[in-house]
Amino acid sequence: MTLEHLPSAAPSLARLIQELNKLPGIGPKSAQRLAYYIIRLPDGEAQDLADAINAVKQSIIFCRECQNLTDANPCSVCANAQRNREQICVVEDPLDVLALERTHCYRGLYHVLHGVISPLNGIGPDQIKLKELFPRLSDGAVKEVVIATNPTLEGEATAMYISRHLAGSNVKVTHLARGLPVGGSLEYSDELTLSRAFQGRQEV
Amino acid sequence: MTLEHLPSAAPSLARLIQELNKLPGIGPKSAQRLAYYIIRLPDGEAQDLADAINAVKQSIIFCRECQNLTDANPCSVCANAQRNREQICVVEDPLDVLALERTHCYRGLYHVLHGVISPLNGIGPDQIKLKELFPRLSDGAVKEVVIATNPTLEGEATAMYISRHLAGSNVKVTHLARGLPVGGSLEYSDELTLSRAFQGRQEV
Repeated sequence: MTLEHLPSAAPSLARLIQELNKLPGIGPKSAQRLAYYIIRLPDGEAQDLADAINAVKQSIIFCRECQNLTDANPCSVCANAQRNREQICVVEDPLDVLALERTHCYRGLYHVLHGVISPLNGIGPDQIKLKELFPRLSDGAVKEVVIATNPTLEGEATAMYISRHLAGSNVKVTHLARGLPVGGSLEYSDELTLSRAFQGRQEV
Repeated sequence: MTLEHLPSAAPSLARLIQELNKLPGIGPKSAQRLAYYIIRLPDGEAQDLADAINAVKQSIIFCRECQNLTDANPCSVCANAQRNREQICVVEDPLDVLALERTHCYRGLYHVLHGVISPLNGIGPDQIKLKELFPRLSDGAVKEVVIATNPTLEGEATAMYISRHLAGSNVKVTHLARGLPVGGSLEYSDELTLSRAFQGRQEV
């Protein structure tokens, strides 16, 4: 959306609409609606939003250990003495850490790759935070690497790269189970999920 | 979403997610995604967004004539000598002005109500910018009021209120045609739209 499409909008308004429109998943219409919503917010609340944006940019850094986004170094997970230092769960994205933390079933450490290997998009092992992973495994303290990349072509390729790299070392490499999602139904499952669920069947 | 749901997120990040989550149409998941997107933006661009939010709050006021949101008083439409001062189009919302301007088929002035009469929600004529409309019609310069409220129950009630208020004056009151949307099909039209289209049929 360019300024020409907003002939009767005030310049500061048109500018806000343009800035909002740059965000992922926010099209021109949503950007307009958000902009008018922001205009009508009490002054303090709009200021809070602007401050939060500035604050996050100023304070967020990569954790020197797990590479997650954090405002303390090391991050709260790496610094937590209660976490199991024998396990590292490798994820693509900081959002995946949040998702796993919500399950409360994992108490080990993380490693955030910030991407996946994707030769078609020109992303090799050096373009993601893979080289930071292997030194963490060298002192023998870590017994298991749980690979939790997404079950996509690129995620699987990244998992494969990591497991090959660790073949022959003393580190056990596992990945998350594939199968039927809880609450899902066989009828609506795709064949690949169903065949993985069948292959991975467990005794009851 | 509360901070407790983001145990491993940095406080400044959790705060940004909360602020984004307050915006209309942005749920917890979108807020997370947007926050991580903002973190990865080049510094300048995140600053631009924050600045645009602050600027819009500082500069946007109601136009003293049409009540549209503007940063000049009167707004660019009201100040434009090329506009037809004999017509005022009454709309619910500033976004409706943008929508009408994009059609390039109307060259008159506007009046923005910032709402509709809605007794169920406790919104009467005094809670929207209706009282600012009638003085604009008192000097006889305006010949036509085009009511362009939405074709909803409340929009129609508001239109009715305005037309009753102007009954007996020299101002012609019109409203936008109802009918089949261009590109639509009879088969999928609701009965009300179809009956309005039938009643409003025009000679070819």
